[in-house]
Amino acid sequence: MTRWPLPEPMQAALEQARCAADEGEVPIGAVIVKDGAIIARARNAPRGTCDPTAHAEVLAIRAAAAALGQERLEGCDLWVTLEPCAMCAGAIVHARIARVYYAASDPKGGAVEHGGRIFDQPTCLHRPEVYSGMGEGAAAALLQDFFRARR
Amino acid sequence: MTRWPLPEPMQAALEQARCAADEGEVPIGAVIVKDGAIIARARNAPRGTCDPTAHAEVLAIRAAAAALGQERLEGCDLWVTLEPCAMCAGAIVHARIARVYYAASDPKGGAVEHGGRIFDQPTCLHRPEVYSGMGEGAAAALLQDFFRARR
Repeated sequence: MTRWPLPEPMQAALEQARCAADEGEVPIGAVIVKDGAIIARARNAPRGTCDPTAHAEVLAIRAAAAALGQERLEGCDLWVTLEPCAMCAGAIVHARIARVYYAASDPKGGAVEHGGRIFDQPTCLHRPEVYSGMGEGAAAALLQDFFRARR
Repeated sequence: MTRWPLPEPMQAALEQARCAADEGEVPIGAVIVKDGAIIARARNAPRGTCDPTAHAEVLAIRAAAAALGQERLEGCDLWVTLEPCAMCAGAIVHARIARVYYAASDPKGGAVEHGGRIFDQPTCLHRPEVYSGMGEGAAAALLQDFFRARR
């Protein structure tokens, strides 16, 4: 049997998540793609940086905006290993990200298909296309292994 | 008639908002208070910094966490001139801010008493105390003047 390969951006996001685990951070990774090329890679880092906003998505968005020298990331896609939380979903809206691809869903902290469902609010200024599920097994396993080792 | 004075942290947040307007940014300001002292001041800066996450609240939280050398801001209060959006409300949760004081409410972009109502979600991990309205006239006037001048 041949298993369909994961898209390269999600493979790169998972690699970032693995690096986060090695650094003692909750393993979540993200990349941003523009015109078919990865322009930013980031991983969860709130502990190491003493910054509660240092989620993978926020760091990737900040890095991409800095690289492009502009506040908005129109035409850019975000690939992330876990369903974004309210903070990250809000950042995705402000950045005008065109498409969001996330691997595992997060019933506890997610705010796309759970909780505040940020993109579904009538007042939401920008709604990205959202695709989920690709790589969810690998993404969830990384998180489970991380928390199991710390219990 | 003696008008009851605004609490000093809200005066400081409004001063930050005025600075933002002078810099061509949407005039919103925030400060963080710990043990009665202001430990961080920030203003909206997404254009100047090419960073869509650079809202006053996020910048104040990041500055306070860096100043304290810790990821969480337990026991700290956030004073801000406008109802926080979903991104900022999420950052407030992650930072474990104890109390949020905001001046004007924001039916379009707010996510505390509007939209995603982040702190009211059953899955919300931390609920700050929330107080609103003090200074709302001054905060709203700053925003109205800013947008009127740009129309």
